[in-house]
Amino acid sequence: MNYKKLGKILGKIMILESILMLAPLAVAIIYHEGVKNILAFAIPLAALAVIGALLQLPKAKRETLYQKEGFALTAMVWLVMTLFGAIPFVINGDIPNYVNAFFEIMSGFTTTGASIITDITLMSHSSLFWRSFSHWIGGMGILVFVLIFIPESNEGSSMHLLRAESPGPQVGKIVSKMKVTTRILYLIYLGMSVLEVTVLMMDKPIPGYENEQFFFSLLATFGCAGTGGFGFIPNSMELFNPFSQYVMAIFLIFFGVNFSLYYLLLIGKVRAVLKSEEFKSYFLLLTLAVTFVFISLVIRFEAYPQVYTTEEAFRHSLFQVVSLMTTAGFTTTDYQVWPMLATTTLVVVMFMGAMAGSTAGGIKMSRIVIALKGIYINIRKLINPRYVPKAKFEEKTLDERTINDVFAFITLYFFLLIMAVFLLSFDPINGQTVTVVSDAGTYTVEHGFFSNFSSALACISNVGPAFEAVGPYANYAGYSAVSKIILSLTMLLGRLEILPVLILFSPKTWKKT
Amino acid sequence: MNYKKLGKILGKIMILESILMLAPLAVAIIYHEGVKNILAFAIPLAALAVIGALLQLPKAKRETLYQKEGFALTAMVWLVMTLFGAIPFVINGDIPNYVNAFFEIMSGFTTTGASIITDITLMSHSSLFWRSFSHWIGGMGILVFVLIFIPESNEGSSMHLLRAESPGPQVGKIVSKMKVTTRILYLIYLGMSVLEVTVLMMDKPIPGYENEQFFFSLLATFGCAGTGGFGFIPNSMELFNPFSQYVMAIFLIFFGVNFSLYYLLLIGKVRAVLKSEEFKSYFLLLTLAVTFVFISLVIRFEAYPQVYTTEEAFRHSLFQVVSLMTTAGFTTTDYQVWPMLATTTLVVVMFMGAMAGSTAGGIKMSRIVIALKGIYINIRKLINPRYVPKAKFEEKTLDERTINDVFAFITLYFFLLIMAVFLLSFDPINGQTVTVVSDAGTYTVEHGFFSNFSSALACISNVGPAFEAVGPYANYAGYSAVSKIILSLTMLLGRLEILPVLILFSPKTWKKT
Repeated sequence: MNYKKLGKILGKIMILESILMLAPLAVAIIYHEGVKNILAFAIPLAALAVIGALLQLPKAKRETLYQKEGFALTAMVWLVMTLFGAIPFVINGDIPNYVNAFFEIMSGFTTTGASIITDITLMSHSSLFWRSFSHWIGGMGILVFVLIFIPESNEGSSMHLLRAESPGPQVGKIVSKMKVTTRILYLIYLGMSVLEVTVLMMDKPIPGYENEQFFFSLLATFGCAGTGGFGFIPNSMELFNPFSQYVMAIFLIFFGVNFSLYYLLLIGKVRAVLKSEEFKSYFLLLTLAVTFVFISLVIRFEAYPQVYTTEEAFRHSLFQVVSLMTTAGFTTTDYQVWPMLATTTLVVVMFMGAMAGSTAGGIKMSRIVIALKGIYINIRKLINPRYVPKAKFEEKTLDERTINDVFAFITLYFFLLIMAVFLLSFDPINGQTVTVVSDAGTYTVEHGFFSNFSSALACISNVGPAFEAVGPYANYAGYSAVSKIILSLTMLLGRLEILPVLILFSPKTWKKT
Repeated sequence: MNYKKLGKILGKIMILESILMLAPLAVAIIYHEGVKNILAFAIPLAALAVIGALLQLPKAKRETLYQKEGFALTAMVWLVMTLFGAIPFVINGDIPNYVNAFFEIMSGFTTTGASIITDITLMSHSSLFWRSFSHWIGGMGILVFVLIFIPESNEGSSMHLLRAESPGPQVGKIVSKMKVTTRILYLIYLGMSVLEVTVLMMDKPIPGYENEQFFFSLLATFGCAGTGGFGFIPNSMELFNPFSQYVMAIFLIFFGVNFSLYYLLLIGKVRAVLKSEEFKSYFLLLTLAVTFVFISLVIRFEAYPQVYTTEEAFRHSLFQVVSLMTTAGFTTTDYQVWPMLATTTLVVVMFMGAMAGSTAGGIKMSRIVIALKGIYINIRKLINPRYVPKAKFEEKTLDERTINDVFAFITLYFFLLIMAVFLLSFDPINGQTVTVVSDAGTYTVEHGFFSNFSSALACISNVGPAFEAVGPYANYAGYSAVSKIILSLTMLLGRLEILPVLILFSPKTWKKT
């Protein structure tokens, strides 16, 4: 292991995190939150800067990184970021318990949006900002950011890190080939974020929060861009005006698109975008899912408590499908009480996620498409043993290796999901009753199997809210500390697409060779 | 397509089914059930015999079968067996609705044991016999039976059929190589069945059913041998004495073992049996699962209604884990109300199933082991790209193809499960409340997501009883006709390990080439 080089990169990330913490620090100052809240960010900021700088001192013998080092480093970086990122909440007292704070900021960085906060109105502006800002940071990947903007990094090492951190079955040619292109992708990310803030500012302010419009627009955008989904006022986005809800839904759809496609758009290759199979599948499935949910809400063949107008039914269908499929997890209504067809559709899109190369989590559309093609090939081969598959994906020949990697990934995804559900079954919360107050009324719900199943799914797919006792108007506070750590690691597994985390914790990685 | 040859084999199966129907016909006569019940079996018996004989008339131009024909035939045979097997229930009035009867006997042949019968005491002896007998028939495979005992069949064709019908990732060398060996396996199956009936006869009779001991021992054995699990008195096996419950648990463990191992035992290769990795994993996981459930029942850190003595807690833990892991689905108590750790353990073993080459369903131990090895290899390769995997399974080198097939199978398994859960979400039963009367008391339970999820799992894994509104003291009667057909096909997918059914329904199979 090239510890010195690893330390150097880790140190750079820590320095970056300390710089990023200047933002919530500024928020604490702007809102006159007092010394404690300023120190809450200043102390970890200083610690990160000092440790980060110290890690730059040793001289590495070797400049390159092996693949295993790249993977392990990726997972380590995210863990360290989270360990330090949790400190402000503990110091300023917004989340006094460290495990809870760790869970919350892990949920932030991994763009999950699962929360343990029971009363969001008690949070300071600086804490709210830091939570949502972590989505924006986590959305495009911390490491990629560093590698692109710190020129010294070695090209070969960068590849390993990019591969470990970028979602999807293969790193798009465009992303990996040139730093320049990647910088353009970041500019697109930034540009779309600025655009969303601007559009959200056009809405009329939310009654009772007239002075907060810019702050809220910013936080909502952080949540959309990173497909994170932390709320910052009670009941997630329920109080937002329909205009803002539509705007957010549309931007979520945009942020669920593979960013390489925007690059193609920019250089005028519109046809290539429209021909993208993943793009088409994404829109097809999105449309189908919205239709199913909408129908189940409008026909009312199954009773559910809310009474929606047709516009409301459409808006909530659109918003919830988009929000869960892009794995953001914002909510505008209590979908927990919806008919079974809506519930099941939402669970299915939570598995799928949006496009690879976006900020979304889940299995990803490209993997679903490749897996289905792989299954088709297997069946064709059984029907005719001489069948020579000439399957293509995105106009490139789909080789057996890619298909097999996808099958392996999906198998691992389900195994880890089942493992997480099993580990959650030890929690004393099971069988307890939770009272939920939502736009569907006040009702009690037992923490049953579906609570654990959907929590684990919401964490591994980086969605956030789940169902039953961990539904959109409930939260993760009731889980034990052990369960919270398990779920935090589940989020990390989901965000880094499993393998880097397994490599970090594999003894073989650390054995001298 | 070699329709004439396909018709010939299909016809032979139909003749076989007509012969098998002599057994329930005899039961109807012995119990003096009257003309209607005798005709209930005599009519389909005659129809099967006549159609089967007619199908022998055309002369096939080609004696061999292609692989696709073998696979499609396998699925077709099971469908036809079920279509005719359902008729007796409709004629004798025990299950007047044909879809219900189809569901029930499909559940029988696929050794699932999911039932739509609400009052088992109203069933005639001949119907009860036919239901349970179908487990015993389905357990070892209908086609294999025919191929082994009808000498005319072509060797090459047999292989395809064996491959399509035998559970597990690869057909054991022993099974495929020689008809003689397979006949020995059938003798083992028969011998173990006779042994179980004999041992069950040693118990004292169940109070109120003194005259039924032989009949019950026979039906219980059919259910164990095929790992089917149809009950024949109220509340499955709850009324059976502890002695019989232990006996059934032990025999279920035996029937969950790969039958090739018994052959190895017979020819004295005890060491080979003890070295089998799948065998060791099976017992390890079985022991672990029983331990988890037992602990959760004894420690009572989570409340549940039943009050068990330690012996009872052990017995029910053993019985339920064994029954669900071997995918039989017999029950001795209402496990639906157990603590979450027990519930989740049972769900996990329902996924896994027992050993390949046994009569059990589920993903199968061997696939789980191979998948885990495959995941390990993938991680090792990322840690060290020059790593050359030398993984073995059952002392044979594990080639990439086998691993990939296993990953593909597991992916398909989960996709189909999710698909079934989605289709069930259209059923009007969702959201309705069911009243359950069990040894845990009387309680109501809503038909929620977990009901559909566990039903679909119980059907694809050929377990039978599920959870929540479809728990051990409830049944599948409430589902709509459409859902029942979906679940019937799900059972068939599970029993034939998916591919033959997909091939049967693939248009490409039927295209002229």
